[in-house]
Formats: sequence, C-alpha cells, structure tokens
Amino acid sequence: VGLRDEILEQPEAMARLLDLGREPILTIAKAIRDADIQFIVIAARGSSDHAATYAQYVFGVRHHLVVSLAAPSITTIYGSEPVMSRALLMGISQSGASPDVAAVLESGRRQGALTVAITNEPDSLLAHAAELVAPVLAGEERSIAATKTYTAELLAIAMLSSALLDEPLETLLAIPDAMRGALESEEEAAAAARELAPLPSCFVLGRGFEYATVREWALKLKEVARVMADPYSAADFQHGPIALLEPASIVLAVAPSGPAGGQVAALLSRLSRDQGARTVVISDDAATLATTRHALPVPAALAAHLTPIVSVVPAQLFALHMAVASGLDPDKPRYISKVTRTH
Amino acid sequence: VGLRDEILEQPEAMARLLDLGREPILTIAKAIRDADIQFIVIAARGSSDHAATYAQYVFGVRHHLVVSLAAPSITTIYGSEPVMSRALLMGISQSGASPDVAAVLESGRRQGALTVAITNEPDSLLAHAAELVAPVLAGEERSIAATKTYTAELLAIAMLSSALLDEPLETLLAIPDAMRGALESEEEAAAAARELAPLPSCFVLGRGFEYATVREWALKLKEVARVMADPYSAADFQHGPIALLEPASIVLAVAPSGPAGGQVAALLSRLSRDQGARTVVISDDAATLATTRHALPVPAALAAHLTPIVSVVPAQLFALHMAVASGLDPDKPRYISKVTRTH
Repeated sequence: VGLRDEILEQPEAMARLLDLGREPILTIAKAIRDADIQFIVIAARGSSDHAATYAQYVFGVRHHLVVSLAAPSITTIYGSEPVMSRALLMGISQSGASPDVAAVLESGRRQGALTVAITNEPDSLLAHAAELVAPVLAGEERSIAATKTYTAELLAIAMLSSALLDEPLETLLAIPDAMRGALESEEEAAAAARELAPLPSCFVLGRGFEYATVREWALKLKEVARVMADPYSAADFQHGPIALLEPASIVLAVAPSGPAGGQVAALLSRLSRDQGARTVVISDDAATLATTRHALPVPAALAAHLTPIVSVVPAQLFALHMAVASGLDPDKPRYISKVTRTH
Repeated sequence: VGLRDEILEQPEAMARLLDLGREPILTIAKAIRDADIQFIVIAARGSSDHAATYAQYVFGVRHHLVVSLAAPSITTIYGSEPVMSRALLMGISQSGASPDVAAVLESGRRQGALTVAITNEPDSLLAHAAELVAPVLAGEERSIAATKTYTAELLAIAMLSSALLDEPLETLLAIPDAMRGALESEEEAAAAARELAPLPSCFVLGRGFEYATVREWALKLKEVARVMADPYSAADFQHGPIALLEPASIVLAVAPSGPAGGQVAALLSRLSRDQGARTVVISDDAATLATTRHALPVPAALAAHLTPIVSVVPAQLFALHMAVASGLDPDKPRYISKVTRTH
C-alpha cells in the first residue's frame, strides 16, 4: 500500500466517517451547545495545522466564532498557560502522539475548557488528554505524507459545523462522489507534473476556505517531491512576496467559483499577463480553467466551505506525480518519520 | 535616503518612541485594564503580521492571554463578523491604509470591543477605525521594505506589555544601545552574503519569541534579494519540510540563549552534522555562534521577550547585503508598492 493507494481510497474513507463517525460528533456538538463558548483554540502541527486553518474559516464564517491557532511553545517552552476556561479547545493530530499538542489540551482541561481531540488514533496521548474524542476512522495510514487523514480531519470539522447548525448531515453525502470526480483529474495532474518536472520552486496561491488547501498542497510538494513550494493567501502575496516572481515562474492556485476564488483568478490573470507566470489551476469554474495550460478540474456544486475537502485531491495527485516525474520515490520521503514528537 | 539608512536609524527611532510614544501607550494600558478582556484578536498584513506573531507570544507568555491572528477575508469576502465583544482588538499597519485590516477593526468596534491601532500613520483609515491609537513615530519610511516601522511596532507591543504589568518603562531604555551593538554585525552580515550570493533558496528557523524574526527575515530576503526563503518554527520544520534538505542547503537561524534558542541550536547542530547543511546564525550565545562559519552576533542581556527587537537587525543587514551581492538594487524591489491595499 503506497501513497497513491491512500489517495485513491479517500472516497471510501469519507463515506465511512460519514456513517460510523456520526455519533461521537453529535455528542461533541451537544457538549459545545451546552457550554458557554466565547472563542476557540486549536493546537496542531503539520498537515493537521492546515486542518486547523480550515477550521478557523469554518467556525469564523459559519459560527461567528474567533479561532486562535495555538503556539504550543508558549506552554511547553515558556511554561505559561493562557486562559482558556471559556474556550472550546481542539487538538487535531493524525497520530495523537505529539507531546506539545497534548500539553496544550492538558492545560486547557485543567482550566475547565471543553476539550476535544480529532484524531485517527483514539487510543493516543492526545485522545487521553481530551474530554471528548472524534475518531476520523481513516484506517491505518502507512505513507509518511498524510492524505486520507487530512481530508478526514476536514470532513470531521465540516460534520461538526453542520451538527452545530442542525443541518442534516445527509447534505454531506455528496462529498465522496465529488471526491471520485476529483480523482479523475489524475491524468491532467500527471501530464502537468511531467511537463513541469523537475520543479525547483513554485508559489501556491488561494484565499479564504482554500487557504488551507494551498498550505497543504505546498507541504505535500515539499515532503514527497522536494519542491520548494511557498503557499500564500492571495492577499498576503501582494504584500511583498510577489517581488520574487520571474518570467516563467510557476504559480499553482486553487480558485473555485465564488468571491474568494474569483479574487485568486483575477490575480492569476494579472500574473500571467504582466509577469509571464506559468500556472496550474484547480477549479470547478470552466472560465477559470480555460485560462491555464494546466487545468485540474474538480466537480462543481459543493458549498464553498466543503470544497477544500475535494479540491486538495488534485493537489495530492500533482505532488505524487511530480515526485515520480522527478525520479523520486513518493513513498520514501527523506528525514521524516510518520510520527514526529516535538516538545 | 535608502534602505540602509533606515536600518541604521533604528536606534534613534526606538529612543524616540520610548520617549514621545509613552503617553498614548499608558492610556491604552489603562483602557485594557478597565475592560474585561477575555482574549485578543490582531489584524495585520505583511511585516506587521510578523509583529502580530510577536504579540501572540508576548501576550501569551507574559499576560496569559490567548491571541488570535485574524483572517480578514472571513469578514471582507464572506461577510461574517466573528464575536469579539469581549476581546481586545488590535490592528497593526505601517501605512494604516489596507481596507481589509480596517474592516476587521470596524467590525469589532461596532460590537463594543476595545479597538487599538498601532501604526506609523496616525491619520489613516486604520487609525480612524480604532478607538485608541499608538503612533510608532518611526518617521517617514521611504524604502518599500519595512525595517524601522517593524521594530517600532515590536517596541510598541513591548511597551504596552510592560505598562500592563506595571513594570517601569525605563527597563526598555537598554534597547537602543543593544540595537547599536547589533548594527556592528554589518561587516559579518556583508561577508556572509558575499560568500553565499546568489542564494536561490534557504530555510529560516527559530522558535518562540523569535518565530516572528524568522518570518520577517524570510520576507526581507524575498522582497529585496529575491531569495526563496522559507521560514519555519523549529518544531514545524521537523513535521515535514525537513525532507527538502540537500547537502549544502543553506539554513539561517535565530538562536538566542535560553530554552527556545537552545532547541534551535540543537536542531542546527544535527542538520549540519547529519545533513551537511551550511548555516548562518544570529545569537548572543558564544557557544552557538562558534558552531557556524557565518556568525552574526547580537549583544546579550536583554530579556527573552525583548531580543526580537534587536535580533532582526542583523537579519535586515544580511538581506540588504544579499541584494547588493546579487547585483540587485535593494531600494527598488519589483512589483510591490509601499502601500498595498487588499480587500
């Protein structure tokens, strides 16, 4: 079982979570409603930190809640415990094994915060530190680069959001099929990777809900294909890093239909026209896809907050095929292990 | 007046802020004490977002307050207004002109949050949006790359922190002299830049209070020297991006004495020994500086939360001299303007 298999099994992993993962999430939603939550704090590292970024937008846009992404070293290195007694405190981790993430949960729980772990390992340090656990049920992930656990973490957050708003979870059942549609972009992703490999560096741009996707896309490219990929929100990119663009710089982008994706698409047009950038674009919008030589289509019709669960799939496939086209083994990234324990 | 002049005038800018900027900050500290603050939200872009990162550690470690770095698009693109009525809401911006940062402040002020602007332009959109204003008094900044306004924003945050803890602001008077000491690293910074130029890419590592410094160092390198510099907390780096290291990869690091810097120094030793990385290190610790060919010393003896105001100075000088050594004009970065208005 390798990275490609785990990418391909994501529709089944999502269907399983929607079915068997439902009860714990409804329990957590009830606990959140019963508590008087003033804000949310999320502790996470690596890909799970991108799931936390996604959660910042979901809870901000749909629940009007401020989300803080915790800086664990405030507690683990400086020994301070920020006041979280009125917060919902979430820890997100595939392995649940990183001591610094668990330490933040323990600090909050001691203060009386409602603590929730979202993890693929319900018998882990993190799960034991939290009062409530949402297992993401992705099955064992053997590849070092996280794929199905990342999308499962996103889906768990989307399920929790729906449960909190009393939306029927059945509306999420469209996700596995949309993911199957996104997997059909593999040929385009492989062709784009072959044409651009070896890619020393690139920018990855998105905005809003898809900011999580561009951070995750960049990390996959770093981990498996050794591409120096630099992710930016389209807004922050214009506050400085745009100075790095060279003619023929490669810009990857996630630009779904809607206002956030529209801003990204407009920036992409400018970068192509004025600065000669070459682009790879993930989108459900035909007009946006028509502007690039390397279009990675995803199915339309999901709500804006659900598209990141699906739009990351062509990004994963592009990273995989970039590794292959660069003569690297995507199943054997260097220097990293599946479980990283930082303090 | 160019970038180098503005780097060199920082000790005077700090002395001016410590003197003339004192009263507004004491007023803000009193307002914060009178309010019942549950958490802090900060909106900022570019270099000012790195000042916000610094503030997350300062308020977390010294005041036990959770800080959320706002995602402005939640309000400006998705039209949602996260609940901030019990928050201290800060906007940080050199120009005060970016509409998205001002929009977050306006949203909070409508809800009754205590709103504070930290800006070099007290007659700006942001300043008018906020109830209270702390001018950073850095004087006109002509260079496109922010330097003296960045350190002045950090110092304003440090002054506010001291005022809130009833520490005499006189303890901060050591900063201008420490900065003068850090400016003496210019020759070493220039020599390191000459030896490493042109630098296509590098990593920049730090942790804790200095995480802001490594983000700012990377941005300066991007803006003025077109270096694809990738900043990481030393912990996050081990959760994936470490896979990118090649023999002779360049790793820049900020590793002051103390536990956070000690972790960075230990990681650096491993990267040099096992992966053949070449390092450039900013530190006040003689033993850490002795491990690298490119040591950029800063004076010792500032408290850990104050060192970022000084340790960024050799980073600015290194970026400046990297531009010069690469045949670029550091006063004319491409594609960016002094004031970037994003929505």
